[in-house]
Amino acid sequence: MNEIIIKPIGEIVSPYKTFDDMPIQGKFRENVEAYIELKEEFVPGLRDLDGFSHAYLLYYFNRSNRVTIEGRPFLENQTHGIFAIRSPHRPNHIGLSIVKIIKIEGSKLHFSNVDMLDKTPLLDIKPYIGYFDIRENVKSGWLEKHFENGKIPDNLFLKNKDK
Amino acid sequence: MNEIIIKPIGEIVSPYKTFDDMPIQGKFRENVEAYIELKEEFVPGLRDLDGFSHAYLLYYFNRSNRVTIEGRPFLENQTHGIFAIRSPHRPNHIGLSIVKIIKIEGSKLHFSNVDMLDKTPLLDIKPYIGYFDIRENVKSGWLEKHFENGKIPDNLFLKNKDK
Repeated sequence: MNEIIIKPIGEIVSPYKTFDDMPIQGKFRENVEAYIELKEEFVPGLRDLDGFSHAYLLYYFNRSNRVTIEGRPFLENQTHGIFAIRSPHRPNHIGLSIVKIIKIEGSKLHFSNVDMLDKTPLLDIKPYIGYFDIRENVKSGWLEKHFENGKIPDNLFLKNKDK
Repeated sequence: MNEIIIKPIGEIVSPYKTFDDMPIQGKFRENVEAYIELKEEFVPGLRDLDGFSHAYLLYYFNRSNRVTIEGRPFLENQTHGIFAIRSPHRPNHIGLSIVKIIKIEGSKLHFSNVDMLDKTPLLDIKPYIGYFDIRENVKSGWLEKHFENGKIPDNLFLKNKDK
């Protein structure tokens, strides 16, 4: 299997139009909202998702036109392997975010915890299941030294330096 | 953007050869191990991932040849929208698992919490970051009624009924 063809199932409509005003992690902007405009044929697939508080969104980093196998993350000046960071400039350019579901109306899924740009092509939606997805004894590698009392300072999330 | 071409970055070498002996969620089989055989050109991308305890694997459900917009999950006889379940028969056939990193040696990443079949094409690896990925006040929709004292009975995970 050498090439796989995938097709967007919809689009993300986000208030963030450029990298500069977008946070690194949407978890830190609780009050910002966006929505998914799902293609009509996939709308029945949303049934019962409204019982979940959170969902994974898989999407395509369509603004990235390069792959850096070793990249510099937002918090540091040193590089790490692309699989140890969340940079968009990765093989296959697939993005993953956990968002908070606000409401689902027809073909629109409204959510907060936004960290995608406007017009980002959506590839999949999966339910976030606490019992499977919340892990214990988690070590977060190079990121841990940036934690202060278990929290990364909020101001570090206001600019995306890795663009 | 109508079609996107992606290419596997490697392959998963798993002890599970068929759906029947594979668990629904790898979290419940701590002692089973598998490994990723990464293509040579991507090996530098693994640098510093060994500081993380867990990683997301994104992969291609290459054994599924259909899409069911409303499907029946393993625990139930009733159907739900495909975006409210984790079935492989989903638009774009992209799978997502959280695995526990055992060790990284050259082009091989050894892991446990295996729930993929042998020879599954790998699309991406991302670090699991507790501070971003562990959410609070999580509601898990239709799954919650199956929890007993916060746990889904282990025997329910030994057969994949959704094949």
